[in-house]
Amino acid sequence: MSAKSSKTPGIENLIRPQIKRLAAYHIDETAVRIKLDAMENPFSMPVKVRREIGAAVRGTAINLYPDPSGKKLKQAIASLWNMRPDQMLLGNGSDELIQTIILAFGGPVLIPVPTFAMYDITARALAQNVITVQLASGFELDADLLLEKAKEGKARVIFLACPNNPTGNRFSDAAVRKILEKAGAAVVIDEAYFSFSGKTWLPHLKHYRNMIILRTLSKIGFAGLRVGVLAASREIVDELNKIRLPYNINSLSQAAAVTALRHRNVLERQISLLISEREKLYNAFLRMRGVTAYPSETNFIMIRTEKDAENVHQELKRAGILVKNLSKSGPLKNCLRITVGTPNENRELLTQLRTILATE
Amino acid sequence: MSAKSSKTPGIENLIRPQIKRLAAYHIDETAVRIKLDAMENPFSMPVKVRREIGAAVRGTAINLYPDPSGKKLKQAIASLWNMRPDQMLLGNGSDELIQTIILAFGGPVLIPVPTFAMYDITARALAQNVITVQLASGFELDADLLLEKAKEGKARVIFLACPNNPTGNRFSDAAVRKILEKAGAAVVIDEAYFSFSGKTWLPHLKHYRNMIILRTLSKIGFAGLRVGVLAASREIVDELNKIRLPYNINSLSQAAAVTALRHRNVLERQISLLISEREKLYNAFLRMRGVTAYPSETNFIMIRTEKDAENVHQELKRAGILVKNLSKSGPLKNCLRITVGTPNENRELLTQLRTILATE
Repeated sequence: MSAKSSKTPGIENLIRPQIKRLAAYHIDETAVRIKLDAMENPFSMPVKVRREIGAAVRGTAINLYPDPSGKKLKQAIASLWNMRPDQMLLGNGSDELIQTIILAFGGPVLIPVPTFAMYDITARALAQNVITVQLASGFELDADLLLEKAKEGKARVIFLACPNNPTGNRFSDAAVRKILEKAGAAVVIDEAYFSFSGKTWLPHLKHYRNMIILRTLSKIGFAGLRVGVLAASREIVDELNKIRLPYNINSLSQAAAVTALRHRNVLERQISLLISEREKLYNAFLRMRGVTAYPSETNFIMIRTEKDAENVHQELKRAGILVKNLSKSGPLKNCLRITVGTPNENRELLTQLRTILATE
Repeated sequence: MSAKSSKTPGIENLIRPQIKRLAAYHIDETAVRIKLDAMENPFSMPVKVRREIGAAVRGTAINLYPDPSGKKLKQAIASLWNMRPDQMLLGNGSDELIQTIILAFGGPVLIPVPTFAMYDITARALAQNVITVQLASGFELDADLLLEKAKEGKARVIFLACPNNPTGNRFSDAAVRKILEKAGAAVVIDEAYFSFSGKTWLPHLKHYRNMIILRTLSKIGFAGLRVGVLAASREIVDELNKIRLPYNINSLSQAAAVTALRHRNVLERQISLLISEREKLYNAFLRMRGVTAYPSETNFIMIRTEKDAENVHQELKRAGILVKNLSKSGPLKNCLRITVGTPNENRELLTQLRTILATE
């Protein structure tokens, strides 16, 4: 019997047209020696901590459903970041929280560009319209332009990645404040890179009831666990909780993260080292011929190469180093995003990059 | 400064009205001795397997993002259930897959009632309309009535839990076939309880291009890992993949499930024991005064009590036994859903239930 039996209606016309138009999110899965494409923390936990995590996991009843509200994990994160558990929501990565937010408020969704790709992808997957506003020079927010577009397009949610990905800069406090006060929309401040900037809007939560803060455990060493964190007023959290999948954080990630977060000194040491490595890398890029480096408050640096970045990206890959090629998009022509790695990885990146840029 | 500052726009009018109308999914978190409310497998893995899982987890690089396509886990499940990895999609539980399906096809979503609550809840959270069709006597599908309602309401997705939750029966092959052939919609056959019925629509995947099969690892011992499984034509899987969150299955669940699924003999032994316990329970209910028991091809049994089920539920809880009270809904008036537990748990449930039903 053929796969296309006459008995069965065609599926083509059943899929929503806006979904058919989408392309899947592309992840480069090339196996490389040095992976500097995804803002992962290059350091693993000390053996002692890994053993503790192993024990916590072994003691977890995987035959039972996870704690639906993630009480212990919320408590651990609340204590780490000075949050209130009753004003928090956990997600299967920030990705899920972005989805939940867009579902709760609906579109249009307004985003400055360039920014983190998942805001746009998620809004489109949820069949919501997206309004884009170009960043000004130095990748700074033009608050007035943004507010004008938000009003004109009746934006219901605005995403501000702060610091911004992939540009690395943090938007000015004045611009963000103006948007919070005047947009008449939910304003999501995505602080995924908070640990590397040290600056946060969190203490202003009680003043801005339309503000939602996002954080993640991914950049500080736990990308594999998929734990995103949201902080907002009880009012918002209660509504979002209604549409959150009831068991969205599995038991092992809960147990592992609770255990890992007890070792705050390890986390702090790794973050300090990454910040100092970022500064070294940045200074090396500043001195490198054929490269423009952009200031960063994150664990990555965006650079622009005089040479075709597409080629540079390919040559680095051949040398076993994966970075992110941003070069297709207009304002990021010839830009690469380079995650800060271990001291050795960063040294090797610089060596390879110098060689590639020196050759014709 | 007060929480309701004049600077900030009210959030009330920003949340979509259809979300404000929703109620959050209720989970009874009472701590009990005997938990028979959630179709969990009551058996844990042998110590040897738990040690292996601990080792696999300890060897997982949690600082890196998970495998976005879950290749090894797909392979393990494909081999367990005779599926094709290229026709599969993994979800953060079936819950996420239900969401992905509704997003891809859009509403209206048609469901027979009573059935698994998450179809309705998810559709509403996604702001899609829901069409309900009452099950006929014996909780069987009325295929003609369903098709009529599907046509009238222009349903785009139909969910058939087969076996059905909370009633426990499997819909007749003839009714399901008729719906697959005539509905002109995507038809989701949720085989969450497949392991306890042994019957599946999977081999018919190539004949029905509008068919989507759901399975889960939750009922066979891994509810804590959150792994849902979808099988459908490549055509459908490719579209769903576009809207799936790219890193939806965390690294620890992937590693733990791959390790656990190697021990197929353990799983099979536990499932056989649960099936034989289900039959013992069912026969005991048949003999019990004041109880009607419904036949089940799952790991739970639905019963109807002559006494007010709300009270029976409360009294069982006081005795340390949690079952699911279904009694609010019309056709399930005075119905309780009881998960099959360990032999000891089932014995104690029967003892307590007899006592409760015997007293005035």
